[in-house]
Amino acid sequence: MSPQTWVPVPEGSDFPITNLPYGVFRGTNGRRIGVAIGEHILDLAGVAERGLLDGPTKALRTATLNDFMASGRAQWLRVRADVIEMLTDESRRGRVEPLLVRQDAVSMCLPFDVADYVDFYSSKEHATNVGKIFRPDAAALPPNWSHLPIGYHGRAGTVVVSGTDIVRPCGQRKAAVDAAPTYGPSQRLDIEAEVGFVVGVPSSLGERVSTAGFADHVFGVVLVNDWSARDIQAWEYVPLGPFLGKSFATSISPWVVPLAALAGARVAGPVQDPVPLDYLADADPWSLDLVLEVAWNGTVVSRPPFASMYWTAGQQLAHLSVNGASLRTGDLYASGTVSGPARDQFGSFLELSWGGTQPVELGAGVLRTFLEDGDSVVLRASAPGLDGTRIGFGEVVGTVLPARTGSG
Amino acid sequence: MSPQTWVPVPEGSDFPITNLPYGVFRGTNGRRIGVAIGEHILDLAGVAERGLLDGPTKALRTATLNDFMASGRAQWLRVRADVIEMLTDESRRGRVEPLLVRQDAVSMCLPFDVADYVDFYSSKEHATNVGKIFRPDAAALPPNWSHLPIGYHGRAGTVVVSGTDIVRPCGQRKAAVDAAPTYGPSQRLDIEAEVGFVVGVPSSLGERVSTAGFADHVFGVVLVNDWSARDIQAWEYVPLGPFLGKSFATSISPWVVPLAALAGARVAGPVQDPVPLDYLADADPWSLDLVLEVAWNGTVVSRPPFASMYWTAGQQLAHLSVNGASLRTGDLYASGTVSGPARDQFGSFLELSWGGTQPVELGAGVLRTFLEDGDSVVLRASAPGLDGTRIGFGEVVGTVLPARTGSG
Repeated sequence: MSPQTWVPVPEGSDFPITNLPYGVFRGTNGRRIGVAIGEHILDLAGVAERGLLDGPTKALRTATLNDFMASGRAQWLRVRADVIEMLTDESRRGRVEPLLVRQDAVSMCLPFDVADYVDFYSSKEHATNVGKIFRPDAAALPPNWSHLPIGYHGRAGTVVVSGTDIVRPCGQRKAAVDAAPTYGPSQRLDIEAEVGFVVGVPSSLGERVSTAGFADHVFGVVLVNDWSARDIQAWEYVPLGPFLGKSFATSISPWVVPLAALAGARVAGPVQDPVPLDYLADADPWSLDLVLEVAWNGTVVSRPPFASMYWTAGQQLAHLSVNGASLRTGDLYASGTVSGPARDQFGSFLELSWGGTQPVELGAGVLRTFLEDGDSVVLRASAPGLDGTRIGFGEVVGTVLPARTGSG
Repeated sequence: MSPQTWVPVPEGSDFPITNLPYGVFRGTNGRRIGVAIGEHILDLAGVAERGLLDGPTKALRTATLNDFMASGRAQWLRVRADVIEMLTDESRRGRVEPLLVRQDAVSMCLPFDVADYVDFYSSKEHATNVGKIFRPDAAALPPNWSHLPIGYHGRAGTVVVSGTDIVRPCGQRKAAVDAAPTYGPSQRLDIEAEVGFVVGVPSSLGERVSTAGFADHVFGVVLVNDWSARDIQAWEYVPLGPFLGKSFATSISPWVVPLAALAGARVAGPVQDPVPLDYLADADPWSLDLVLEVAWNGTVVSRPPFASMYWTAGQQLAHLSVNGASLRTGDLYASGTVSGPARDQFGSFLELSWGGTQPVELGAGVLRTFLEDGDSVVLRASAPGLDGTRIGFGEVVGTVLPARTGSG
């Protein structure tokens, strides 16, 4: 049973005392690190300034989570324990309560400076669906898919926080039936519902991080919407992979849920056949029982299940560093689109509309294949927290603005 | 005719008074910004500290070039003019000479914090060669190649400065004849000789930068060795592009040659057929008459000519931002391997050895296909400077260390 917090937490809140995700809010004192609790944020910089935390706190008095994330697991757990104590011990309420800020009174910032951004492709259902849609004449899954977690680097500089509007990208595209490519606003603007892992502790160049090293290096988890322009992507991606079809924007949740809060969501990892090579082996393979939710203009169109992803976050980390590539604090790696086997579990509109051929009904007779200007998408996720609670990630919200058309 | 500098500059130096590239050196006072002149470095931080430069100089008293690169073209040109004056006016010699540091007395650091790293694929000869070697059963050039500068994001965190040793990467690979993939040290470790462009002035999310905007955003040019593990790459790259085959290391020259120093190297841009879409049009298409040099264990095996690259640096910038992707200070984008039509102009060992089938002779009967442990590679480049001078980029040096084999 969790300790009771003296902070009022509404029934069904994403942020009970068992969650305590970290974020950066902009209030009257500029950008500050905070921890979500119910409808409030505990101003952690204020807590540090007033000497209410033991140990070194300089890393908490900055404008991003990076220094704190770099400080290592022992420090993460110590600060978490201190915050729990502060928010549950009634005798501390008098000094702590003035440091609570209402979430609706501030705006949220990008929680950390993104170092490198890697996007994987680890849902077998998603990869199969995309293969069938993009490459109808070939095998749905490429031959390497079952042997390694396929991934690629995305643009770190265009990772934005939830709430950032998404300008419809322009670019070059050519359908198979077109004689020549054309330039213009993307006509197949899409989303990808993903789960992202944030590296705290760096590694050295030439050093491998094993699956067992995951807990020492990874600080926490965010939700990710990897916006995708399918027409641009389809024309550009052979042979060097997605580029402009993805690089215009990737939205993340403002809250980073620490691994400690997800202990109750751990489930057995997927069965893998063929057995992966030893460098991808995991003595204790695990996944997370997260269920995502995709709302399109307010209508929930999908609930992708993360637990069934084929490649695990530990394997993704071991793979991306197996060649000696170093990790930096702020590295973000995303799971790839989370899709389950059922249509109402698909994590992209490409799949939900099956390449634009089967419109999605948003209620009141409104049909959609891809995003129209003014559309908004909200991603949410829910997971079992500790002690029978339910925790969430907040929302990843984005609204599509019309393309800025210039000379083509 | 250039003004004469009072600094002794050896005949044939990469760094005459018409060059003046920027770098970061580590001396007795830590990391400092400097300008190369002959065999010396002018300690620009020291110049700033002693009040020998007009205007704001805080950006020069940091450990990277980023702040100075962000300060904009007017400031770049002002500082350059001041440095030229300082190094040519005999009356200033007494105060400036104590700020010269011998290059062989210090070590060079990564000159700037790399934001995003993009690698293009803009040599028609290279793309054709790779297509023939990697995809012998398909058309050598993919259908999009002549319509857009193909590129992808690489790992920014593993961009290292010249002189950094390269640990042979391990990873997963599978040749067509193999029944299953295996794990181990790369057996086809390669280089790619490239030219990199460094962004100084950022742009906003949703904003396009046109070909004409190049000179306002791009600060300067570096040499790039994009180390590549061909066996890892060949197995992983379909469908999302190169990942671990490239992400273990990318070496750059310690010196960033400012665009102003390359005015004498500008030549007409390539003839492009088909005519590119308007967003890639350039009123004054240009390239740079750089000739690269690849030395393998001391033997020059290739002299790739940059002037003949099909897509220009201005077009690459316009393409990478056409979807509204923002630029950040420190973004690095590389040309892709520079290869000319002749075999002794190929910029990779993959091409020089034609997929490992035609060994390269390094003299004294030594034959090579790909890199062996202990091998070293040195890239250099030469270009016409102003006033009939010749300028260089210094060297990009790397030595291969044995793989750190662990459990496979």
